[in-house]
Amino acid sequence: MKNKDSHAKNIAVVGATGAVGKKIIHLLEKSTIRIDTLTLLASKRSQGKKVMFRDKELTIEEAKPERFKHVDIALFSAGGSISKQLAKSAVESGAVVIDNTSAFRMDEDVPLIVPEVNNTDVDDHRGIIANPNCSTIQMVTALNPLKQTFGLNRVVVSTYQAVSGAGLEANEELRTQTEAFLEGKEMTSSILPVGSDEKHFPIAFNALPQIDVFTENGYTFEEMKMVNETKKILHMPDLAVSATCVRLPFFQSHAESIYIEIEKKGVTVSDVQHILRDAPGIVLEDDPDHQLYPTPLSAEDKGDVFVGRIRKDLDHENGFHLWVVSDNLLKGAALNTVQIAEKIAGEGTH
Amino acid sequence: MKNKDSHAKNIAVVGATGAVGKKIIHLLEKSTIRIDTLTLLASKRSQGKKVMFRDKELTIEEAKPERFKHVDIALFSAGGSISKQLAKSAVESGAVVIDNTSAFRMDEDVPLIVPEVNNTDVDDHRGIIANPNCSTIQMVTALNPLKQTFGLNRVVVSTYQAVSGAGLEANEELRTQTEAFLEGKEMTSSILPVGSDEKHFPIAFNALPQIDVFTENGYTFEEMKMVNETKKILHMPDLAVSATCVRLPFFQSHAESIYIEIEKKGVTVSDVQHILRDAPGIVLEDDPDHQLYPTPLSAEDKGDVFVGRIRKDLDHENGFHLWVVSDNLLKGAALNTVQIAEKIAGEGTH
Repeated sequence: MKNKDSHAKNIAVVGATGAVGKKIIHLLEKSTIRIDTLTLLASKRSQGKKVMFRDKELTIEEAKPERFKHVDIALFSAGGSISKQLAKSAVESGAVVIDNTSAFRMDEDVPLIVPEVNNTDVDDHRGIIANPNCSTIQMVTALNPLKQTFGLNRVVVSTYQAVSGAGLEANEELRTQTEAFLEGKEMTSSILPVGSDEKHFPIAFNALPQIDVFTENGYTFEEMKMVNETKKILHMPDLAVSATCVRLPFFQSHAESIYIEIEKKGVTVSDVQHILRDAPGIVLEDDPDHQLYPTPLSAEDKGDVFVGRIRKDLDHENGFHLWVVSDNLLKGAALNTVQIAEKIAGEGTH
Repeated sequence: MKNKDSHAKNIAVVGATGAVGKKIIHLLEKSTIRIDTLTLLASKRSQGKKVMFRDKELTIEEAKPERFKHVDIALFSAGGSISKQLAKSAVESGAVVIDNTSAFRMDEDVPLIVPEVNNTDVDDHRGIIANPNCSTIQMVTALNPLKQTFGLNRVVVSTYQAVSGAGLEANEELRTQTEAFLEGKEMTSSILPVGSDEKHFPIAFNALPQIDVFTENGYTFEEMKMVNETKKILHMPDLAVSATCVRLPFFQSHAESIYIEIEKKGVTVSDVQHILRDAPGIVLEDDPDHQLYPTPLSAEDKGDVFVGRIRKDLDHENGFHLWVVSDNLLKGAALNTVQIAEKIAGEGTH
C-alpha cells in the first residue's frame, strides 16, 4: 500500500456522459478529494466531447484498458458489461474501482458499501468496491438505524421508481410520450420497461410493474437486487426481505412503501421517529398534522434519504410502515459512489 | 315490497356531471335494466345542461329532496355531504339508494356490496346500499376467491392510484401541471392531494403519499377505508389489514401491490393462478416469460379486475404477492354501482 494520504489523486470516471456519470462529475467538483487529473471515459461515440471541470475543459476519451495507467480511483457507471470488461484492467493498473453497476455486487470478495451503514466493510476490498442498487441504498440507510436499536426481522417493500434509473434515454422517452399523449397522438415505446427485453410499454400516465428482466422465481432482477443486497449490506443473510418494484412516470427520486417487523416489543412511532431524526444521512419529514411527508419532487437534487408516514401496523405489534424517498441519481448512485471515493481517497489507495 | 320484477324502473343519478356520474349514465345505456324515466341530478350550477341518453335528450336538474318522487333506484355519486343531505329523502320517497360515497359505508344497517363477493348482503338493506371505495373493490374482488379456497390471515397493501379518483378537476390539474412542467413553467396546485386540505402539492411527475385527510392514528381516511371496508365486505372483522395509499400521475385505473398470508400450507403460485383464472370479475394476466402483467393503461375502460405478478413470498411459507389493477371509475365505482342496481332492479324495489 502506497501512503498517498493528503496527496492529490488521479480519478477516472467511466460512463462520463450518462445520467449518473454527469452527477458524479458535478459532485467531484465540490468534493473534498484533492484531484490531480480527472480522466473522463465513455463509449466511442462520445469521444472528443468537451466537459468543463473546475474551470478546465476536459475531453472525453474512449474507455479502454490502457486508460487506467496512473489512475488511483476509477468510478464506473457505464453498465454491467463495461464494468465486467474493464474493471479488472483498472485494478491491475493499480486503481481502486468503485463500481456502480450490478456486475460485482454479490461477489464475496467485493464489499457492497453504503457509507452510513457499513463503511468499515470497505477495508476488505481487493481492488473493487461495489455501489449498491439505487432502491437498496435508500432503504438500508433508513432501516439500519432501526435494526441497530430495535432489531429487524422482516422487510416487505413496494417501490415507486423514477425513469432516470433506466438512464437518460428513459427520461427522453417519458418526455416524448407525455407530449404525444397530451396532443392526442399515439405513444411509441422502445426503452421501458427494459431496453433489451422483447416488449415495450408506455410509461407516460402509466405504471410498469417490471424493472429489469424477470428471474426464474417470478421476481425481477431489480427485486432480487433489493433482497440480496439488503441482506449483504446489513450482514443479515437470514433477514426476511421481499420486494415489488414498479416504474412510474416521474423523472427523479425513488419512493418506497416499506413494511418492517422489528424485534423489540413496545416500540412506538415516536421512538422510531426519535431514532431516525438523529440518524446519519436521514432527514425526518413526518408530520401528518401539517401534511409533511417527502415526495419525489421534494427530494430531487438533495443528498439525503427522507422518511415520513411512519405508522404502527394496525395488527402486528412489532410492525411499522415507512415512506422513504431519495434522489436515485444522488444518494441512490452518484453521491454514494463519491462518498466511497472520499473514504478511499482519505485513507490512501492500495 | 312491491313486486316490480320485469317492470321498467325510474332511475335517478345524483352527481350526473361528475367523473363517476358520467360513467354511470354511459353504463345504464347498455344495462339490462328496463328504464322508464331517467332523472339526472347535479348541483345548481349544472342545472339546464343537456345529456343524450338512448337517443333522448335529457335535462339536468338541481338535486333536491322533492326530485325523488316515483324514483325506484337512486344512484348517488356527488360526494359524501350531498348523500348525507339527500339520501334519506330519497329513501322516504320510496327509492332504494345505491350510494357511491363514504357517507354510510360503515353503518351497521347499510350493506356494503361488491356483487362478485357478497351479493347476498344486499337482501339486508333498509333503503340504502353502499358502494365501497374504489381501491377496496378491486382488492376484495381479487382476494375473496383466495379467501374462500385457502383462507386469509393477513393483507398489507401499497396502492398506486389514479388522479381521477379525486374527480374531473384532478384530471385537469394533472394535465395543466404536466403542460407547465414540459414548458419549463412553474406548476400550480389547488386540488391535490385533497381539495379541502391546507396544503397542495404538484402531482405531475410526482407521487403524493396522501389520499384523503389524515386520521388520528397517522393513517389517511383512504387507508382506513381500505382496512375497514375490506373487513366488512369479507365478513372478517379480525382480518389483519394495513394500507399505504399513494396518488400518482396517471388519469385512470388504480394499481395495488398486495401482500397476503393465507391459511392453507403448501399452496403454489400455480394454485393461486388456477383459482383466479376462474374467479368472477377477474382476468388473470400473469406470464413473466412473455412480460404479461396488467398496467393502468392496459386496464383502462375495461370492467374487470386484472391480476398479475403473483409470487410466493421468499421467506413466509404462506405469503404471496399480487399486482392488482382495475379501472377506478368502472369496477371501482360506476360499474359496481350499476351491477348493484341491476340486482335490485331484477328483484324489485322495497
